[in-house]
Amino acid sequence: MSSTDWQEIASERKRKQEDLIPLEWRIPSPPDGLLDVTLIPQACGLLTARELEITDTIDVNVILSKLGNGIWSAVEVTKAFLKRAIIAHQLTNCLTEIFIERALERALKLDQFLKKNGRTMGPLHGLPVSLKDQFCMEGLETIMGYVSWVGKVSDHDAAIVEILYELGAVPFVRTNVPQTLMWGETFNTVFGRTTNPFNRKLTPGGSSGGEGALVALRGSPLGIGTDIGGSVRIPAGFTGIYSLRPCYGRLPYEGAANVLEGQEAITSAIGPMASDISALKTFAKAVLDAKPWNKDPLVLRKPWNDKEYALTEHGGEGAQLCFAVMLDNGLVRPQPPVRRAMSMLVSALTDAGHKVIDWENKLHLELHATSEHIMSADGGEGYRTVCSLTGEPLLQTMMPHAEQPDPNHPWHAHPTFLDEPFTMTLRNAGKGAISAYELWELHKKKAEIRKQYLDHWERTKTRTGTGRPVDAILCPVAPYPAPPHGHNSNDFYTVIWNFLDYACTAFPVTKVDSSLDLPDPPPDSFYNQEDEAVFKLYDPEVFFNAPVGLQLVGRTQEEEAVIAMTEIAVSALETWKGVHSKS
Amino acid sequence: MSSTDWQEIASERKRKQEDLIPLEWRIPSPPDGLLDVTLIPQACGLLTARELEITDTIDVNVILSKLGNGIWSAVEVTKAFLKRAIIAHQLTNCLTEIFIERALERALKLDQFLKKNGRTMGPLHGLPVSLKDQFCMEGLETIMGYVSWVGKVSDHDAAIVEILYELGAVPFVRTNVPQTLMWGETFNTVFGRTTNPFNRKLTPGGSSGGEGALVALRGSPLGIGTDIGGSVRIPAGFTGIYSLRPCYGRLPYEGAANVLEGQEAITSAIGPMASDISALKTFAKAVLDAKPWNKDPLVLRKPWNDKEYALTEHGGEGAQLCFAVMLDNGLVRPQPPVRRAMSMLVSALTDAGHKVIDWENKLHLELHATSEHIMSADGGEGYRTVCSLTGEPLLQTMMPHAEQPDPNHPWHAHPTFLDEPFTMTLRNAGKGAISAYELWELHKKKAEIRKQYLDHWERTKTRTGTGRPVDAILCPVAPYPAPPHGHNSNDFYTVIWNFLDYACTAFPVTKVDSSLDLPDPPPDSFYNQEDEAVFKLYDPEVFFNAPVGLQLVGRTQEEEAVIAMTEIAVSALETWKGVHSKS
Repeated sequence: MSSTDWQEIASERKRKQEDLIPLEWRIPSPPDGLLDVTLIPQACGLLTARELEITDTIDVNVILSKLGNGIWSAVEVTKAFLKRAIIAHQLTNCLTEIFIERALERALKLDQFLKKNGRTMGPLHGLPVSLKDQFCMEGLETIMGYVSWVGKVSDHDAAIVEILYELGAVPFVRTNVPQTLMWGETFNTVFGRTTNPFNRKLTPGGSSGGEGALVALRGSPLGIGTDIGGSVRIPAGFTGIYSLRPCYGRLPYEGAANVLEGQEAITSAIGPMASDISALKTFAKAVLDAKPWNKDPLVLRKPWNDKEYALTEHGGEGAQLCFAVMLDNGLVRPQPPVRRAMSMLVSALTDAGHKVIDWENKLHLELHATSEHIMSADGGEGYRTVCSLTGEPLLQTMMPHAEQPDPNHPWHAHPTFLDEPFTMTLRNAGKGAISAYELWELHKKKAEIRKQYLDHWERTKTRTGTGRPVDAILCPVAPYPAPPHGHNSNDFYTVIWNFLDYACTAFPVTKVDSSLDLPDPPPDSFYNQEDEAVFKLYDPEVFFNAPVGLQLVGRTQEEEAVIAMTEIAVSALETWKGVHSKS
Repeated sequence: MSSTDWQEIASERKRKQEDLIPLEWRIPSPPDGLLDVTLIPQACGLLTARELEITDTIDVNVILSKLGNGIWSAVEVTKAFLKRAIIAHQLTNCLTEIFIERALERALKLDQFLKKNGRTMGPLHGLPVSLKDQFCMEGLETIMGYVSWVGKVSDHDAAIVEILYELGAVPFVRTNVPQTLMWGETFNTVFGRTTNPFNRKLTPGGSSGGEGALVALRGSPLGIGTDIGGSVRIPAGFTGIYSLRPCYGRLPYEGAANVLEGQEAITSAIGPMASDISALKTFAKAVLDAKPWNKDPLVLRKPWNDKEYALTEHGGEGAQLCFAVMLDNGLVRPQPPVRRAMSMLVSALTDAGHKVIDWENKLHLELHATSEHIMSADGGEGYRTVCSLTGEPLLQTMMPHAEQPDPNHPWHAHPTFLDEPFTMTLRNAGKGAISAYELWELHKKKAEIRKQYLDHWERTKTRTGTGRPVDAILCPVAPYPAPPHGHNSNDFYTVIWNFLDYACTAFPVTKVDSSLDLPDPPPDSFYNQEDEAVFKLYDPEVFFNAPVGLQLVGRTQEEEAVIAMTEIAVSALETWKGVHSKS
């Protein structure tokens, strides 16, 4: 195919998407200079007071309770979120598939079911759920950022979609991703770039960046993303929302489209994304109660465990916890707002009676090199095979230089200080396409590192004073708050936990405050080129209004405890903010 | 190294082993014509009445209870099993490492602990446990059938060894394996061939064949093997004992030596082997209660689950179960004794009130081709790398032709009817050493087959009448009873469950009976060359006294239920035998 061909396919598909937006739900484009668009959904006048009441309700359990009691109908809740999602899309370009009729029909069925049977269809009865453009739905395309996949209509529902139907949920939109999914930003040649609603010059992160922008604008009460290197946690951190990365095989991935299929050493996991922490437990428990191992052979037969949620392995409910802080991973230093966020969290936890000790870094360089080499073991053949179908380019950067010359446009590039991200330096030191035997050697290396890290964690027992090893690790989502488009170069703070397969969450802590987050004087030396570039990038004005999230990291297959400990941290933080608020 | 060198290393190591056998524990070699040596331990006069009482006790819980109550001391139990193990070794060549002093010292410590504290050290207090020559123990060699590994002394205990110590067990001998572990028989150039105690012209199976022969002769109350394609179930089936193959990562493999390290698509699992079914639950529960995930990062955080053991997912305790029988996998037909064993089991279960339906074969050829291609994805580079250290040959067969020309010797070869096992036909149709990308494609294929098989199992719900899909599958361990040395060519009845990662057990049903197990007339056609060869191989005289085992196969990570259902099957079989015994 000639280059005109793929460009035509892409632009036609984008036009088709635009045509799906009802005329009466269109809003004027905000002026280029308006960076923070988070207030527009309320201000644009499109949503009724009741629709605002519904969509501003962040606790999913409150929404579910009102749906279950018939106080709100599934149809009106779905319509309210559909409208707000389409507003969010017009502000941040966060959607791919929009299927209004299908969603409303489904919602109507749920209302009829409740009326007829006097009970809900399931624990997520009537809840609109948005899905990353990876989760196949029968009769809809799954494009996943590839021009080559335009028109690729699914003949099946992904297992998670099947389960969402069983649980009574209402899938209602799907959301944008980067081509190949292997970027921490959200840009592709079919649907274009998704922006951060808090500052459109910033990225919402990726690869589940469409979900991040959508949920942050309350266009969805619950989004489903996936994470192989930070892809639910990075968008959550950059858009001020909550997410969970469960361990490999805890939640069903079966039937979803993916990249690097067959790469089983570091596998992607499904995770919820929401404006309120309540969604994490509600979603995880509902899906696990549906016995997903009967639909997906790779799902662990490990039901939701209330005892683990009650922290029986962590001293029991109400016990003093001991957290270890990994603020600086020894590879890229965190910027001032990230450090302030961590110090807020540490104060909050200490005030709440918990202990905090330092995490001792170990093996990070070796770990990241091994991770990069595994991920690139096919030398990119998988990506190229897909791109070759139309001749579309395989993107080499998320930098917007070429694409937007207008300096006033929110997509205009901020200058870069980095010739080569450290990730690429590590990857390029590898062998590219390797043999199966060489890949097995890398797997072996990975297993060795995992064992050493486990022993490292176990040995903290001597330092905690609780009689247990540390209960969880606290660390940044990234060395920076949401950065300008094209500048999310380093995913080491998230990918480490995918490699080790530790359950973890991301949660919002603060936003950049130019009066508090002053640039640092330069250190005596930098760890490497990227540490220096990240240092130089920091400017409170560039990072205006950028959310800052942190991670709480537990142990393998300990999702219940990780959710519970995150609830404790978030509650401590709220209390602390109440005491220390400026006002 | 020259060939003399490796041969010298091998024979010196074998001499060193022989020197470790105390003179007073030596017995005369049985005459070549004596094939069944199972009665020699009782008859040889070496064991005292009390030592016979101890070693003839097959229920491990009875042994543990007498140890816990101080009725038997750990020292006397250990000594009794040591003596009997060494008798077994002289009959079948089943051992590699023998460490009498170390074991007795450990036992003494346990006796002192009990005396001092008035309680046992753990749930396996004082129990001698034999280990396949894979489980590293500090200060001992792990040779695993490679001349190249002679002198390779471990600087650590494998995680399972650490846990056995915590549980109070007494590791006391290690057992023979085939070179590379990837054979269903037990022969290597260091320690030679292990024979089947029921008929020394037959193989005890492999790769955990040393354990099989040892346990069958009551030289160990509990053996630990490993299984990547049938390696605990084949020896169990061929030597008339019980075994469990748990799913990937249910029990800790960390720190054990292995082959194909880094091959993570179809992974080896640790399994118990014993003369009584009681050992399966006792071992699995004790190890899981020790939280092995804190020592091995690949172990699932899935504690022993009493509810699953009570069959809550299978109608609850006492419910009617529905089994599906896969007697003929469509690739190699089972011989008459295997068919008779299955018909005994089906009658027993039906008499006990359970239902039995047919399993519908699906995807077997595709499954086995994919499995073979994954296992040989390195083109044998891993094996060759080890062998090249000394220049020892990489074995291409377990056929004893070259090695034993004397027709009276138990190792003399039975004629073969097979030019190429079907396994090798499939493997040779693959590509040999392949790229990482090609391996990923095979992984993807494997995941697709697992999904199709899961759906296939779920769909049996329409045929069971219990409201559930079938509770378990019953199938042969192999298409034959224990075959002559070199003739265990086909592992399809076991490897299928490794590929699918279904939890399963093997258990003894009967032995070949020349009056009942008459040869069949030839079928109209054969499935393939191996089906024909297996048909031709059958002769009740060749298979004299050969044990016949069957498998019970449950679903992924359902070890508790699989153990419980096997207990039900075994108990039904005992009842049935009581009613239908000839006498």
